[in-house]
Amino acid sequence: MPLIERLTIIGTGLIGGSFALALRKAGEVGTVVGAGRSHENLETAQALGILDKIAPDAASAVKGADFVLLAVPVGQTEGVMQSIASSLEPDAVVSDAGSTKQDVVAMAQRHLSANLTRFVPGHPIAGAETSGAQAARADLFNGKNVVLTPLPETNFKALVKAQSAWQACGAKVSIMNASQHDRIFAAVSHLPHLLSYALVDMLASRPDSDLFFNYAASGFRDFTRIAGSNPEVWRDIALANRDALLTELGAYASKLEELKAALSTSDGDALKKIFSRAQEARNTWAKQD
Amino acid sequence: MPLIERLTIIGTGLIGGSFALALRKAGEVGTVVGAGRSHENLETAQALGILDKIAPDAASAVKGADFVLLAVPVGQTEGVMQSIASSLEPDAVVSDAGSTKQDVVAMAQRHLSANLTRFVPGHPIAGAETSGAQAARADLFNGKNVVLTPLPETNFKALVKAQSAWQACGAKVSIMNASQHDRIFAAVSHLPHLLSYALVDMLASRPDSDLFFNYAASGFRDFTRIAGSNPEVWRDIALANRDALLTELGAYASKLEELKAALSTSDGDALKKIFSRAQEARNTWAKQD
Repeated sequence: MPLIERLTIIGTGLIGGSFALALRKAGEVGTVVGAGRSHENLETAQALGILDKIAPDAASAVKGADFVLLAVPVGQTEGVMQSIASSLEPDAVVSDAGSTKQDVVAMAQRHLSANLTRFVPGHPIAGAETSGAQAARADLFNGKNVVLTPLPETNFKALVKAQSAWQACGAKVSIMNASQHDRIFAAVSHLPHLLSYALVDMLASRPDSDLFFNYAASGFRDFTRIAGSNPEVWRDIALANRDALLTELGAYASKLEELKAALSTSDGDALKKIFSRAQEARNTWAKQD
Repeated sequence: MPLIERLTIIGTGLIGGSFALALRKAGEVGTVVGAGRSHENLETAQALGILDKIAPDAASAVKGADFVLLAVPVGQTEGVMQSIASSLEPDAVVSDAGSTKQDVVAMAQRHLSANLTRFVPGHPIAGAETSGAQAARADLFNGKNVVLTPLPETNFKALVKAQSAWQACGAKVSIMNASQHDRIFAAVSHLPHLLSYALVDMLASRPDSDLFFNYAASGFRDFTRIAGSNPEVWRDIALANRDALLTELGAYASKLEELKAALSTSDGDALKKIFSRAQEARNTWAKQD
């Protein structure tokens, strides 16, 4: 018997579609039902073998499901929770795939009522420059990290089921609390996005911006790649993780002050110390990753 | 007759070696003589067909040369200028390949005396994760930008010869003054390096740094790639271009303040505006580049 008998995916894009494909490949899912805002995308998902059935809406999609994955943009998560709460089966495990977790936990506390004990917030760390069902692939999560941030109310059986599902997709699953998750990702993901957007906008705002862009080369290309990310998505993430991000922004501003002080006094030793520590840490990380 | 009859390369690494190979391929160089600190590297360069002759020191290397390229680390440039000044031929064009230009101009003014009229400071924008003669390739500069920053004293014939040499290597040559060069590269190259080092050092300095690095993913990888750069090289560049870099660091700190203000007040519109402008500028640039 597969781990999941009837899986419902709300939002059958890159993440939701890849989750379904990976579970199918592992033989760990029976029927897959999908719902979403774009009927065209759902039909693509069915044509690609991601979905067995298309439901007319989220509430009817979750009927009969023993596992529900919410894989919609974070701005739609709360609405989906509201609409499915009274239709969920009494044993259904619910998970999500949002990049921030304390906000999702708060939404679940507001709307999932009795189902809260079977809610397992999740964050798959799998990059996505592409989107939509046609971008889904069975190996998207292979070797990637997935963080689960159970609530104090989450029951153990639900946590194990969510963990097993992601492991069946090939992911490395870690469990931590939502605030620790948000603190970590503020530093290693949300802050770098802000910093990259900031550099590009600083140059783009200049009257002679062309002059600068004309001479930007490969280092600039790498540093600013994430400034090509979707502005709405990152606005939502920044707002959702505001407090942790402000803390990291403050810490980063202090580090820049330290560099500025060293540079102002032409303190080459201090600069070299910072650069060397960073280089070593970066190269050590890059080798292990 | 080739453009350069006798080329001398001081520092036969990636840049110097590739310059010689490219000119050979173009049929624009007669004899190539090399000098440098590592005899082993010079022998490699000779074995690879980069050099015809190895000179015992920089002063004897420049004798008879009608073109001299200084391609040593910027920290050694001043010493090399001192040692070659009295041995240069009266028609020899001298160029360099340093990442900063006002400092090199000042060194030349101190040491090259009568040869100053034939000094053409240059900066080839060709990335280098590798180094040494064995990394040199004839196509390194193909389609890449090379900036030349002549002094008021530089004579036109010398400028044209340097320009023709880089063009023969396949490079796109631009001419501007040294202060404009340093202002542009402070913004598009030196500042991003500082910012990338700063993020990695901020995380590496934490007692729980492993926790952060464990969850860093592809966006972090791109953003921090330049933090893997050589600390001594970037210390020297930062110090050499201190004033322009401090100006850019100040402008960047203001942009971060703007983001902080928007985030503190949960001003999603302001965040989206900055992110959107940056995304558009970045994508437009990436398409053209």
